Amino acid sequence: MTQSSIAPDTAATSPVRLQAVAAEGQPDVTPALEELYRGFEKELLVPLWTEIGDLMPAHPRSRAVPHLWRWNKLRELAARAGDLVPVGRGGERRAIALANPSLGGRPFATPTLWAAIQYLMPGEDAPEHRHTQHAFRFVVEGEGVWTVVGRDPVAMRRGDFLPQAGWNWHAHHNATAEPMAWIDGLDIPFQYVTESQFFEFGRDDISDAERITPSRSRSERLWGHPGLRPVSAGTPGPGSPLLAYRWEHTDRALADQLALEAEGFDGTVEHGHAAVRFSDPATGADVLPTLRAEMHRVASGTETAPVRETGSSVYQVFDGSGTVTVGDTSWSVTRGDLFAVPSWQPFSVRSEAGTSDSDSGALDLFRFSDAPVFEALRLDRTQVEGNPR
Amino acid sequence: MTQSSIAPDTAATSPVRLQAVAAEGQPDVTPALEELYRGFEKELLVPLWTEIGDLMPAHPRSRAVPHLWRWNKLRELAARAGDLVPVGRGGERRAIALANPSLGGRPFATPTLWAAIQYLMPGEDAPEHRHTQHAFRFVVEGEGVWTVVGRDPVAMRRGDFLPQAGWNWHAHHNATAEPMAWIDGLDIPFQYVTESQFFEFGRDDISDAERITPSRSRSERLWGHPGLRPVSAGTPGPGSPLLAYRWEHTDRALADQLALEAEGFDGTVEHGHAAVRFSDPATGADVLPTLRAEMHRVASGTETAPVRETGSSVYQVFDGSGTVTVGDTSWSVTRGDLFAVPSWQPFSVRSEAGTSDSDSGALDLFRFSDAPVFEALRLDRTQVEGNPR
Amino acid sequence: MTQSSIAPDTAATSPVRLQAVAAEGQPDVTPALEELYRGFEKELLVPLWTEIGDLMPAHPRSRAVPHLWRWNKLRELAARAGDLVPVGRGGERRAIALANPSLGGRPFATPTLWAAIQYLMPGEDAPEHRHTQHAFRFVVEGEGVWTVVGRDPVAMRRGDFLPQAGWNWHAHHNATAEPMAWIDGLDIPFQYVTESQFFEFGRDDISDAERITPSRSRSERLWGHPGLRPVSAGTPGPGSPLLAYRWEHTDRALADQLALEAEGFDGTVEHGHAAVRFSDPATGADVLPTLRAEMHRVASGTETAPVRETGSSVYQVFDGSGTVTVGDTSWSVTRGDLFAVPSWQPFSVRSEAGTSDSDSGALDLFRFSDAPVFEALRLDRTQVEGNPR
Amino acid sequence: MTQSSIAPDTAATSPVRLQAVAAEGQPDVTPALEELYRGFEKELLVPLWTEIGDLMPAHPRSRAVPHLWRWNKLRELAARAGDLVPVGRGGERRAIALANPSLGGRPFATPTLWAAIQYLMPGEDAPEHRHTQHAFRFVVEGEGVWTVVGRDPVAMRRGDFLPQAGWNWHAHHNATAEPMAWIDGLDIPFQYVTESQFFEFGRDDISDAERITPSRSRSERLWGHPGLRPVSAGTPGPGSPLLAYRWEHTDRALADQLALEAEGFDGTVEHGHAAVRFSDPATGADVLPTLRAEMHRVASGTETAPVRETGSSVYQVFDGSGTVTVGDTSWSVTRGDLFAVPSWQPFSVRSEAGTSDSDSGALDLFRFSDAPVFEALRLDRTQVEGNPR
Repeated sequence: MTQSSIAPDTAATSPVRLQAVAAEGQPDVTPALEELYRGFEKELLVPLWTEIGDLMPAHPRSRAVPHLWRWNKLRELAARAGDLVPVGRGGERRAIALANPSLGGRPFATPTLWAAIQYLMPGEDAPEHRHTQHAFRFVVEGEGVWTVVGRDPVAMRRGDFLPQAGWNWHAHHNATAEPMAWIDGLDIPFQYVTESQFFEFGRDDISDAERITPSRSRSERLWGHPGLRPVSAGTPGPGSPLLAYRWEHTDRALADQLALEAEGFDGTVEHGHAAVRFSDPATGADVLPTLRAEMHRVASGTETAPVRETGSSVYQVFDGSGTVTVGDTSWSVTRGDLFAVPSWQPFSVRSEAGTSDSDSGALDLFRFSDAPVFEALRLDRTQVEGNPR
Repeated sequence: MTQSSIAPDTAATSPVRLQAVAAEGQPDVTPALEELYRGFEKELLVPLWTEIGDLMPAHPRSRAVPHLWRWNKLRELAARAGDLVPVGRGGERRAIALANPSLGGRPFATPTLWAAIQYLMPGEDAPEHRHTQHAFRFVVEGEGVWTVVGRDPVAMRRGDFLPQAGWNWHAHHNATAEPMAWIDGLDIPFQYVTESQFFEFGRDDISDAERITPSRSRSERLWGHPGLRPVSAGTPGPGSPLLAYRWEHTDRALADQLALEAEGFDGTVEHGHAAVRFSDPATGADVLPTLRAEMHRVASGTETAPVRETGSSVYQVFDGSGTVTVGDTSWSVTRGDLFAVPSWQPFSVRSEAGTSDSDSGALDLFRFSDAPVFEALRLDRTQVEGNPR
Repeated sequence: MTQSSIAPDTAATSPVRLQAVAAEGQPDVTPALEELYRGFEKELLVPLWTEIGDLMPAHPRSRAVPHLWRWNKLRELAARAGDLVPVGRGGERRAIALANPSLGGRPFATPTLWAAIQYLMPGEDAPEHRHTQHAFRFVVEGEGVWTVVGRDPVAMRRGDFLPQAGWNWHAHHNATAEPMAWIDGLDIPFQYVTESQFFEFGRDDISDAERITPSRSRSERLWGHPGLRPVSAGTPGPGSPLLAYRWEHTDRALADQLALEAEGFDGTVEHGHAAVRFSDPATGADVLPTLRAEMHRVASGTETAPVRETGSSVYQVFDGSGTVTVGDTSWSVTRGDLFAVPSWQPFSVRSEAGTSDSDSGALDLFRFSDAPVFEALRLDRTQVEGNPR
Repeated sequence: MTQSSIAPDTAATSPVRLQAVAAEGQPDVTPALEELYRGFEKELLVPLWTEIGDLMPAHPRSRAVPHLWRWNKLRELAARAGDLVPVGRGGERRAIALANPSLGGRPFATPTLWAAIQYLMPGEDAPEHRHTQHAFRFVVEGEGVWTVVGRDPVAMRRGDFLPQAGWNWHAHHNATAEPMAWIDGLDIPFQYVTESQFFEFGRDDISDAERITPSRSRSERLWGHPGLRPVSAGTPGPGSPLLAYRWEHTDRALADQLALEAEGFDGTVEHGHAAVRFSDPATGADVLPTLRAEMHRVASGTETAPVRETGSSVYQVFDGSGTVTVGDTSWSVTRGDLFAVPSWQPFSVRSEAGTSDSDSGALDLFRFSDAPVFEALRLDRTQVEGNPR
């Protein structure tokens, strides 16, 4: 929608601004048309014929752009915030979100996804609250923080994925003498846009019992055994009842897939490309109703086939290094770097050729996306291009 | 996010604008904090603590406002467009959309819903195309247009509801000597926001066979018999295979509910308030994956209990008159008037007390909403207040 | 399992009887083997190797056989029972069930299905009860009985299909001066075998209000409008909330399919063969959790392709006449005749070539089966042979 | 159905036998009634009023009885069969099934469940085949056999549960110098009754590659990581893609539940009673479409509350000893003993009070049942009596 040539009085009262333009598919620009457009503005109306190219494109053209955030910069600014910004009721969390450069400065990594670095100083607590937004934490480095979900303390360590379905009470506390950083992923932009958010403050302080720092949470003791569900649990609510997916399992699953491929069996997504999806053990479905999370391992010296998908993703490099291509943009990436892949932009990655001093040379990528929204509503589409090699 | 007091060089490069403010829950405003915020801007980062009130409110606070559009104004401007704006390839449809006054002048009745008046002149055709956006037509007055969906001509008459699931080819033609207006409802804003849209042009002209004007479409002959499904049809794709829900059925269903109530039986939603939901006969679910559509009848002199729901609705008065209240706003409404109910705003309606010259005095309201999105993602909440009477 | 050559003492104590036989795939008959078999018998054990051919055949070999019951015989015996057998508490219903000749004289039309003629004399009531067995009534001739389900009186007329999901209270009363007969279909054998049955007596007499004889039941007024569901009803329990599927709708749906075929469009199952499935309007699924019901119309002079399916069916000729073939058996059939089609037996039908005095000459067949059981458990298979014409 | 007083000519032709009896709820015994019954017999008809007590009881009254089979007897007879009965094509498996004493000597542990001991001699192979019957193996003692499912060798060791969904190719081979016994559970009786069985012979010999004896199967390497699903696998068919549930996981899950209880948290089914259900990691549902499998641990000196359920179960004592009560029958049980619990019979267990030489004193019970059939068809009911302690 263009913004010009309107009568001053209308400008004062209507947010709608219409400009008659001489172009193919558009009506002839005449005084009568101008008058009609002023009528539309006055009545808060907008014709389809001036908007259709933007609203109904041949395929998704994202308002977001591919963008990369460097972990070392994030880490540095988060540490500085650790010095300057207290954590407490009101601000709630020392979380600093990625703002896609073409989304108007809003803290939206993509139109539907929130990704932030969160930082907690030694001994600090983040107060308890709950919200309908679905969330997870993923740890690229460090350890020492316990997230307390429904009074169950859950350790966070490098490589762990920790989902937390909406409307569960949660707090965090750093039980060590070191600060810790991790990333938070949420569906904040999606719920902002659909306007479904509820939020409640919880207790200001967690109890001593919740300061115990077990290596396994109660949720893992109930739900963390492969293929086994506790009979006592019945049918849990939406979102995974398992609050931690440990790196040792994820790593082993990825290694198993590549080993199966090497033995001549199925298992990888494509040659040299292993991937696991974090799933709800009670349903086998995505770990959260609106968020998908996966870990990908691209073997040393491998290039993946470009894939387009409806919906957007955020990736974080967990280990290794390589080159990532999103649409027309390429970056060299290394541990901790985060990048956004907008809807329908082709995405591929090439891992660096291995060097002998690495245990594997593989590039490990953590990914999260809004795919469950698209699948639930039958709006998902995927297009895989032929592997260029 | 506030917009001020930033260094000129940053302003030139970053869409992010952060202002340190002295307020409860906010960090102390110091030069160091200002420097930190400049660092955030430079790295395209936004802290949660400046945004949480907007993004994570205690309950949905819609960016949209309640708003009413008068049918006589819409009808008049659409007729004028009929004179000035041709229908053809490129513009595709002579559709004029409602723009919620607080959504930046965009043609969004609510953050997720599109509602437009469409107008077709005698003998005119709207060319064939298809798109992933789910759509329906609802006819508040007139007749004479056939919508041709998958080459099946479907008559449109007052009171008819005509769904058309995404990715079906469709065209319209006016087979009569009179212009005709109706409303289109689509999930254009939702798919715009989630960026899942595909669009394709179809044939420029429909065939003579499709210009036949049967009173019942093929879809109705297959799927329009209550409780009966054609064995040949297997499992249809997403969205209803039934392309027309005729007023005679809707009217009778509503009358039956009020009659049952009068006889002392269950059937109405609340006293004097009948409602039917248009459903997919193949699944019993909502008629479209992202859109719910219902017809409500409020008996003469009845006031409904205020209801809040996550998600938004657009209503059109089909018959009768009364007073509608959305949040703090009330309007007197009559046939054809359209209004938007934003998320979590309490909504109630009072029908005018009957006068003897009316056959029923009831207020008939057509409603559509984004409820299936919320239910599929487990984000739906409803709160009914005690009936004030 | 054969029955011989066992020691007398074992015979007295064990129902297991094993005979060592000299045959391919069987162990050598030796005294040691005989002693082993006596040990099995004593310990209530049966080896797989003597049973596998019976229990694990290459494809289903039904214990049931194809069989035909003539309506005029059923009608005559039911009328005689009307004279001799009162209806009341204890016997509950004057229902006379088909007993497949190879199922040991039990009242099982097939291993899973019950089919019976029920007969009610003028003014008679069948007392209220409820049971977990799912049931329906289908009327091949006559009228005058109301079935009262959950206190809702439902008229029964020629061509009507009346489902009644398990655990609903129900009674019947004949409101006219004529006796009436109809067929009952239930999953009695299936629930007998799986042992899931519950039963409760209800009131001995229905109230005067339930003796009212409306032409439409309350269930039809709520659920009988195509594609419309009452918003007040929420999510009904298992089984259709619609208690009557009227012949006028079924007949029209079948006629529509044949007319579409004649016009060159899809709609029939195969050439000249229309079919509708009675479905639950709340879910689109089968009308009852364990029973599928359909009406088929085979145009005059048409022969259907032989079809094999896992699971069994019972058919009743509703109108017309023709020749039915099940496996190696063929019968000429006419109105009211009932026949059983066992699992995996090929089934086809040829309608009589039309004569000028008939309005259509078509053969109308009502069918019910246990297909929902097989589909729910993923045990369904279908094999259609090439149409022999 | 009673069997007497019928005319000789009818007796010769009809399996139906009806006897008019003087009893409440039965019609008066008259010559006319006798004649009517003879007519029923001739036409293969059976009236409901003579059958209703058997077919429609107030609650399930199982044709099966509670029964116990001692493991030492089974083991001894199976070993003897190992000497006398070869394993090969035709007989297919050296499996010896439990025959419930009141089910006519058929190899049915309950009306729907098959349970057998299978025995394989050193170096022996059981040939490849597949069938629609769903199956599992459970190992109460020993090791050394690999089951080869879809060419994937799966080790079998004490405590392991190995499901194998219908229609998968499978063979077994004993790779050691010791014989091995285990139990097979299948839905053979259910599929026999519903007549849905298909069976095919596979290769006579497995390949050398399949004789490799890995400690983890390929299925475990793909699907055996808690909460992680391989992205490459898409949506697997019915039944679990995970072919082994290892004892170390099951044991730990049960220990965790009891430890949580001891710490004051939820986790057990009731006091001192832990239970896990083997589930399909792709869906969270039961491991097989028709079979549920669980492991229960009853802490030393604990008595469980009596539970009635629709559907039947077979249990095997995995470890410990105690007293089991089914209906009016009680047994002392110890490792390996198997027993059948018919539908709606109250079941409870008391574990032996611990002695110091045991590592836990707990009673571990493996259980399988037909519960998924009942849940899929909405026929499940459960009744828990107040804990008598």
